[in-house]
Amino acid sequence: MAYQELENHFKRLSHFHHLSAIAGWDYAAMMPPKGSEARSAALAELSALISRTMTEPAVKTWLTSAEQETLSDLQRANLREMRLQWEKANLLPPELIQAEIIAGSKCEHAWRTQRKENDWSSFLENFRPVVQLARERAKRLSDAWSVSPYDALMQQYEPGMNTAKVTDVFNNLKSWLPALIQQVVAKQRVLEVSNPIVTPSGTFSIEKQKALGVEVMKHLGFDFQAGRLDVSTHPFCGGVPQDVRITTRYREDNFTQSLMGIIHETGHARYEQNLPRDWTSQPLGQARSMGIHESQSLSFEMQLGCSPAFLEFITPIIRKTFADDVNLAPALTPSNLQRLYGRVEPGYIRVDADELTYPMHIILRFEIEQALIDGSIEPDAIPELWEQKMQKYLGVDTRGNYRDGCMQDIHWTDGAFGYFPSYTLGAMYAAQYFATIRRKVPDLDDQIRAGQLTNIFDWLDKNIWSQASRWETQELVERATGEKLNPDHFKKHLENRYLHMV
Amino acid sequence: MAYQELENHFKRLSHFHHLSAIAGWDYAAMMPPKGSEARSAALAELSALISRTMTEPAVKTWLTSAEQETLSDLQRANLREMRLQWEKANLLPPELIQAEIIAGSKCEHAWRTQRKENDWSSFLENFRPVVQLARERAKRLSDAWSVSPYDALMQQYEPGMNTAKVTDVFNNLKSWLPALIQQVVAKQRVLEVSNPIVTPSGTFSIEKQKALGVEVMKHLGFDFQAGRLDVSTHPFCGGVPQDVRITTRYREDNFTQSLMGIIHETGHARYEQNLPRDWTSQPLGQARSMGIHESQSLSFEMQLGCSPAFLEFITPIIRKTFADDVNLAPALTPSNLQRLYGRVEPGYIRVDADELTYPMHIILRFEIEQALIDGSIEPDAIPELWEQKMQKYLGVDTRGNYRDGCMQDIHWTDGAFGYFPSYTLGAMYAAQYFATIRRKVPDLDDQIRAGQLTNIFDWLDKNIWSQASRWETQELVERATGEKLNPDHFKKHLENRYLHMV
Repeated sequence: MAYQELENHFKRLSHFHHLSAIAGWDYAAMMPPKGSEARSAALAELSALISRTMTEPAVKTWLTSAEQETLSDLQRANLREMRLQWEKANLLPPELIQAEIIAGSKCEHAWRTQRKENDWSSFLENFRPVVQLARERAKRLSDAWSVSPYDALMQQYEPGMNTAKVTDVFNNLKSWLPALIQQVVAKQRVLEVSNPIVTPSGTFSIEKQKALGVEVMKHLGFDFQAGRLDVSTHPFCGGVPQDVRITTRYREDNFTQSLMGIIHETGHARYEQNLPRDWTSQPLGQARSMGIHESQSLSFEMQLGCSPAFLEFITPIIRKTFADDVNLAPALTPSNLQRLYGRVEPGYIRVDADELTYPMHIILRFEIEQALIDGSIEPDAIPELWEQKMQKYLGVDTRGNYRDGCMQDIHWTDGAFGYFPSYTLGAMYAAQYFATIRRKVPDLDDQIRAGQLTNIFDWLDKNIWSQASRWETQELVERATGEKLNPDHFKKHLENRYLHMV
Repeated sequence: MAYQELENHFKRLSHFHHLSAIAGWDYAAMMPPKGSEARSAALAELSALISRTMTEPAVKTWLTSAEQETLSDLQRANLREMRLQWEKANLLPPELIQAEIIAGSKCEHAWRTQRKENDWSSFLENFRPVVQLARERAKRLSDAWSVSPYDALMQQYEPGMNTAKVTDVFNNLKSWLPALIQQVVAKQRVLEVSNPIVTPSGTFSIEKQKALGVEVMKHLGFDFQAGRLDVSTHPFCGGVPQDVRITTRYREDNFTQSLMGIIHETGHARYEQNLPRDWTSQPLGQARSMGIHESQSLSFEMQLGCSPAFLEFITPIIRKTFADDVNLAPALTPSNLQRLYGRVEPGYIRVDADELTYPMHIILRFEIEQALIDGSIEPDAIPELWEQKMQKYLGVDTRGNYRDGCMQDIHWTDGAFGYFPSYTLGAMYAAQYFATIRRKVPDLDDQIRAGQLTNIFDWLDKNIWSQASRWETQELVERATGEKLNPDHFKKHLENRYLHMV
């Protein structure tokens, strides 16, 4: 049976991906500096091997034959996902992929210095070929999938999503979010005059912060028999479903960022840890998409973690962790932590942005990269567009500040266009899940306050985690919540949290 | 050029070995328990891939063609080593290797319980097929290499070594070592009555023990930019030359074992870290053999680490580490540490044995496994032989105690016959190196006492590390020390240390 050959083939691939995930995690979290060159060579060899395995001629034949075979629903869905992965690996000529890797590495490598030096014009020289190659990729995928070039790029990360749908929901956000931001900022600033936020200040040992993180992860259901928490410069969730590796970074003068970062990564981790075990070696058993993955981390961080009820639940845990420092008492109250985590301030940097301003950073990037890929603008037009949009959407002046403007992200340096929308799609999905859960569980906040999170996890498990790639994104969300992606839930969540906040 | 094809091929293999080494290290040092099944599957896939790559028909053709090509001396030596690796991978049919893995895993898995239960007869059932398969392996290698079956097994670990040579040096040891052991034990017991050894007792935090280990490793030249120290149940040296991973295990009630264990692994590590960088991806650039590897760890542990001069050097470092505990002062003197590390006591367990009794454990195993492979005994004869030899060589009674007798080692459960001699060959090589170094550097002990170890490392680097697999073992040792393996150096070392000890 061709289908069985395919399952065996993808199982083999999953073993190679396993090694890649662990060696990649080690690279970021464990490896000493002199190991870098040999590791990069080993990972490149593995990546070439995966690519060769994906493009073996037999796979194409099996895919065609398997379509005619009698398959269960799950097998048929698996076949659909196999084909998608096969297409991503086979629609692009190896020379293009090679050229992308070279141009992307060159651009990223130089960017690390150029960004510090605010050197847009030097960056532009390396960036132009990256854009050119991304357009070529987009064109090829677009021809094969009969969608627009930018849609083709986006669908690499978010299958089934397209510019029309994203534009639709983003236009919705644009119609109310900038005003809401202004309103919330004004309200918070007034309150801060009479009643300032207390910043927890002191020295927070890494050992204690780690113990706190681990304790909170346990409350969030992270399985330490099937995963680890470590440290890396850029936090991420890696490893494999049977052994999920999340990382954070600690600052001794601030525990709040790391704590919420850990909660965010725990959301990614629980998704991975709860993917259906029978299917882990198959495309069907993998996480649905980048947007759905982000919907899990943001369910944990934004819907749950930053909620007043959850902060009330973890305040005693935080207090106990840092019990030695009596000066912390005024900072460690639920309402103060809530204000601290809920503070809104338009700024330059996406990764530092609060929940409210974050989508505007995304919309700006979405609009620019779309124009870049469809050819209506060239890379040298980016700074001006960036400055206009930052001014318009967030009232922030980034003129001449490329470093904290259009040069801030790593995504474009590597040619990863089409990825950014996933972040805000994830935020909206998460709000929609929680609206659904709240309808089912009217006293959810009381439960959260008591640390009873079972209803939340059960819902996510049943509707998202255990479904893996069974359905395409839109169907997954509709089955889970009874409706298509609906930005109203995100709006209500934001209004509720930021306008009615203490 | 066929030779160049071979270099490329072995470079590719080195990348796969890199991934295997890191994923294997992770398995032992980092992986949570539930990761085990998926990791084992991924490692098995990689191992099958390595085997397929090694047996690609082109390699045979290249090996033949390359013999006719004009090569440098180094290339020719590399070709010799390539052929050896190729033979090991190609002389055995895949079915045999598969059968060995299955029988070995089954035997080892059950042994973990059976050993605890002292259940020799159940063990025997799984062990018989392991022996049978090892005999088949030995037969096939023996036919191809025209040596005796047991020699063939030994040459997998120690190329060029054979039973005649090993018997020769082991007979030499047998002629004086049992008497020396008795003499030293008697002398130490008398001394202990009037002047007892002070055991350092207290709680030694893992954090402090690790800091002590790291400091000592730095004095021993371990490059932390190219390696790490971690924890695992069974200490080992893994990773790759560019990124060497050593492990230890800590006991809070005893720091001395872990400290000397770290020194031992650091010897392995420095060998790896100093293999010639231009050749790391090639067979020529790899460590010479198991015996030579062990000669490095034992150079560090026994020749250097346990020497009175080195203990004098590190005593202040140990004192500083545990400065909080004033009760330790009497234990932490150079002469007390020297007696502690130099205490001789015949016992059941090889891995717990002191330097003096250790070779007798090895000789016993060598004699039994030799008979087992050449078929002059069957597995059920092992316990009786074991008991006789333990009584004869060490005066220890192990009758009926299989757990601490013939069931104690993991080696035989997996069919790794022929490996044991390497340990004692390593000890003898190390003594011979240091005899050579001492001839060149008459004030070596003064230098060691002052922490000046450059002469030792320079000698090892020049004569062993940088030579990698350039020469076969016997030639390597002869070039380094001016003579073949000569057990007299080991004898002098032991007499000097144990008869003239304080």
